Amino acid sequence: MGNKRLYWPAKSNYIPPASSTSIPKKDFVYDAIFIGGGAAGRFGSAFLRAMGGTQFTFEADNHLGGQCCKHNCVPEHFAYDNSVYMDHLRWFGGQLWFPEIPDKLDMAPIFDVYRKVRDTNVYQFMTDQSKGQLGIEFAVYKEAKIIDANTVEVDGERYRAKNLVIATGARPRIPNIPGINLKGVITHQELVGIDYEPQKIVVIGQGKTSSGYTSFFRSCGCEVTVVNRSPIYRWLDDDVREFVISNMKRRGIKIHEGVKIKEIKGVEKVEAVVFEEDGKLKEVPCDTVFLGTGVVPNSEIASPLGVEIGPNNEIVVNKKFQSSIPNVYAIGDTAGLPYVMSKARQSGMIAAKNIMGEETEMMDRTIPEFMFTTYEITWCGLTEKECREKYGDAVIIKMPPDKLDIGLPLAERSMVMAHLHPEMSGFQKAIIEPKSRRFVGFWHVGYGAKAAFQYLPVLMDKGLTVDEMATFHELFLNAEHFIQLTRLRAGQKNLSNL
Amino acid sequence: MGNKRLYWPAKSNYIPPASSTSIPKKDFVYDAIFIGGGAAGRFGSAFLRAMGGTQFTFEADNHLGGQCCKHNCVPEHFAYDNSVYMDHLRWFGGQLWFPEIPDKLDMAPIFDVYRKVRDTNVYQFMTDQSKGQLGIEFAVYKEAKIIDANTVEVDGERYRAKNLVIATGARPRIPNIPGINLKGVITHQELVGIDYEPQKIVVIGQGKTSSGYTSFFRSCGCEVTVVNRSPIYRWLDDDVREFVISNMKRRGIKIHEGVKIKEIKGVEKVEAVVFEEDGKLKEVPCDTVFLGTGVVPNSEIASPLGVEIGPNNEIVVNKKFQSSIPNVYAIGDTAGLPYVMSKARQSGMIAAKNIMGEETEMMDRTIPEFMFTTYEITWCGLTEKECREKYGDAVIIKMPPDKLDIGLPLAERSMVMAHLHPEMSGFQKAIIEPKSRRFVGFWHVGYGAKAAFQYLPVLMDKGLTVDEMATFHELFLNAEHFIQLTRLRAGQKNLSNL
Repeated sequence: MGNKRLYWPAKSNYIPPASSTSIPKKDFVYDAIFIGGGAAGRFGSAFLRAMGGTQFTFEADNHLGGQCCKHNCVPEHFAYDNSVYMDHLRWFGGQLWFPEIPDKLDMAPIFDVYRKVRDTNVYQFMTDQSKGQLGIEFAVYKEAKIIDANTVEVDGERYRAKNLVIATGARPRIPNIPGINLKGVITHQELVGIDYEPQKIVVIGQGKTSSGYTSFFRSCGCEVTVVNRSPIYRWLDDDVREFVISNMKRRGIKIHEGVKIKEIKGVEKVEAVVFEEDGKLKEVPCDTVFLGTGVVPNSEIASPLGVEIGPNNEIVVNKKFQSSIPNVYAIGDTAGLPYVMSKARQSGMIAAKNIMGEETEMMDRTIPEFMFTTYEITWCGLTEKECREKYGDAVIIKMPPDKLDIGLPLAERSMVMAHLHPEMSGFQKAIIEPKSRRFVGFWHVGYGAKAAFQYLPVLMDKGLTVDEMATFHELFLNAEHFIQLTRLRAGQKNLSNL
Repeated sequence: MGNKRLYWPAKSNYIPPASSTSIPKKDFVYDAIFIGGGAAGRFGSAFLRAMGGTQFTFEADNHLGGQCCKHNCVPEHFAYDNSVYMDHLRWFGGQLWFPEIPDKLDMAPIFDVYRKVRDTNVYQFMTDQSKGQLGIEFAVYKEAKIIDANTVEVDGERYRAKNLVIATGARPRIPNIPGINLKGVITHQELVGIDYEPQKIVVIGQGKTSSGYTSFFRSCGCEVTVVNRSPIYRWLDDDVREFVISNMKRRGIKIHEGVKIKEIKGVEKVEAVVFEEDGKLKEVPCDTVFLGTGVVPNSEIASPLGVEIGPNNEIVVNKKFQSSIPNVYAIGDTAGLPYVMSKARQSGMIAAKNIMGEETEMMDRTIPEFMFTTYEITWCGLTEKECREKYGDAVIIKMPPDKLDIGLPLAERSMVMAHLHPEMSGFQKAIIEPKSRRFVGFWHVGYGAKAAFQYLPVLMDKGLTVDEMATFHELFLNAEHFIQLTRLRAGQKNLSNL
């Protein structure tokens, strides 16, 4: 059922120039054959080439770069960027010089533009960079079949390598709900090809991908209802979670938590979602159901090898990204959690290093995370609660302080909010273990802090204290005020909240 | 002449609640009396209080927080935020759902809103945080006169302290040009009180403050001409500079470099600026002249003490921010270059530490910098040229690569640009000393990278190599792509450009 969704044909007519693709060599043993040229496979291939290794990358689709540029990260960010502009104009429109916008804005043309640019520029950039700058050897439209741990078969021919690297990604998890195959039940993959204008959308599941689209749908003026098995965003710090959810509600998104989905109703096309909440059946009419119910690694390709498969369908790997067969690697989403870009790319790098004889494990770094609503939410490390549980205490530096109802510029481009709509202007929080004076968590809701959260965990892992932070140079007005707020407390022998 | 501009009365009618201000004690010797409660004085006061010291802060104006929230950083950022929205709608308007906006947009209402919010919320936040959260003792509308190194006189009464801390800021430098006192010749200080709509503006000088306003004026639809003694932005890396200036020109800003200003013409009100360029006299008609000609530290208050004054009128200080009289400190802009917020606040902290007996010098860290045009430009460390001069070689990682004419999302919120206007989508560059494999410079033009540049120089100072960077976790799609681009090269034994 779900698998049919996965293997839809690429609607792109892009074909890389023949001069960019390569013909794999039959009488040759590559250092590695990569199956899949997405984020993990492409970065792994590039790193191996940079180290002087020989590789060939077979890509089943028509482009390198994988699902990220096909229907994941790139369209999500494009939609998010549109969503933020829309949301801001909804708040600011009619004030100062800001124009007003209609209640309902079309989303299909946005994805039309996206697909057009993707099928030309984006895929072409992937080709140019991969071949021209990185020297990767690859071919597209090549479905590979694994014969043994050194051999793949493509188009009836066999190719050999010292190592196989499986980088076949993941697919949306399709829950087992009556009505799931009705027209109008879509994942983010189908969304980028949408050819009608949704008016009423029910979002099932609030993961990191669906959260951004949930707010995007609302920014477009759709009626949006979220239904979720458990409380949403329970991985967020409590204060952050409250700010985020209250701002979703403020924008008119309806949220039902702790529900059990019973049925997606409809004749041919979806008409309503039926769920049980507090022991009662409820029905929300809709023309579209958006599934945000997670992903499943594509590990089936490895079945001829008999490698160990984990509980989420992932290929089980060690810290070198070797499967239970040492010269067979699995990287990216195929290797299971966490399903993040940095892990995908790093796993490619680490596999390449090990293949080239440089024994390497992935470093045990704190991984930063982000999530879109209308806001960008970024964090690394512990919640306040986790800090209290782990260390018995916590000191908090946050902005705005409790009960402050004036606007503060707590995010990139938030000065307009701070001046016109104080309640919108963001939230941030740093969590300190007071005995060691070390930071153990950073949280930001707003815009423009994401890039900083790539470096904050590195410093945190190195033992960043409030005393060290106080000597850093803030770039005022900064999107996050951690440095200057810290400096207002660093003089204290016994740290107190700010 | 210029001084009249400086000492204009605050047009704010804000008065802090009596419960927030304090009455200074006459029969008491404070650890420190701070003269001026701007960024430097306020952070210094807070740090000293956090360490358990006693202080009193005399502020001549009606609020703490100084010029930053009165007419410097805050309105500049508010204008910049408006400018970015305007600029983007000028590019996107009429495409997809983006509304079109009129050619000319009023700026006076923007500053009206700014002043209204400033005179209530912003000043009140400064009061609340300073008194309620930080325990600073202060009084406003208090012009202090220095009697000796331990005594100040305020309203005819004398107050004593073990140390004086002078934090009186800086004022705009007013060049000696005929016509400089005509109506319509303004600095950023007068701009926030503007009560007419400029149509044609000549900007004299392109410093870090005027560059942002230059683009703001253009975003509002004004005709904007920049005249500058030397090539503008010559401190930028050549590639960055070219991208930035070409984008200013693309937006219709006229730039004259290497000129000598002869006269500001007008009867009562400014009518034109006359300058010499390539040996010829040129005249640009205008209704407004905006001065971006730098600042002069306010050190005159210290003259009764006879402390050493430097060539820019700054109080000369050592690395502890002590003047030539050890118990008299000068902090912030009063102490001279660099005129940046982080130095202002840190100098307050360092003065406080030394006053409290903890001998401390400002750490020798690389200071990141930023500048607005329509874009946000952030950087730290060396230009490519400086790297080649210093180390004889440089390896460059940049995006987009040379001669690429497709859009890449090289900035926060730039996905719309990348899809609709590729030529807008930003520029970034990292500079590596290839022998040590260490980063020596980072540059970014776009949006959303500023917060990252608070931490990049810290890591750079710690010796960040390409090999270490390759193990960091990027938050894809990130505003700056340094981590992932580095990873595409880190496998090479001998690094090559990307």
